[in-house]
Amino acid sequence: MLAVRWRARPGAEEEVAALLARLAPLSRAEPGCLQYDPHRDPDDPRAFFLFERYADEAALERHAASQHFRELVLGQALPLLESRERVRYVPLLPD
Amino acid sequence: MLAVRWRARPGAEEEVAALLARLAPLSRAEPGCLQYDPHRDPDDPRAFFLFERYADEAALERHAASQHFRELVLGQALPLLESRERVRYVPLLPD
Repeated sequence: MLAVRWRARPGAEEEVAALLARLAPLSRAEPGCLQYDPHRDPDDPRAFFLFERYADEAALERHAASQHFRELVLGQALPLLESRERVRYVPLLPD
Repeated sequence: MLAVRWRARPGAEEEVAALLARLAPLSRAEPGCLQYDPHRDPDDPRAFFLFERYADEAALERHAASQHFRELVLGQALPLLESRERVRYVPLLPD
């Protein structure tokens, strides 16, 4: 599982939100993507949180190699971010 | 949705993990608890991440008022923690 925190540059937050809204359904449709939920901090509109779960390593690699990841994340979202934190966790229990 | 990060005191991490393993099924059984997934950082055994989703405010309040929360979290886990961060997010998209 990946807990990802993005912080948009000032003024870029709505564009980042729009990119995530486009990205989520495409990611969710990937084989092996179990959960891809973007969130926003209601008290801090520049703060985003992504909860991503993949069936296995191959599914995560498929995500990272996908055209929508390369285009929407690497190409468009990352330049709009002030910071990006990506922590990998393992479930303590089965679902 | 709540993104919760716990950091156990040195030497207390296995006890914290055991408490979370007891707490998760009890939380998941609460009416209105949609997801209660404890995780651990494979590279840092003292770091835990909880992903919690509730149907509504009342469900979250039920969780906080539950005996297992009071007993296992407030009573036993919190004294074992070096730090606790709890951020509330709202989903950007419907599930």
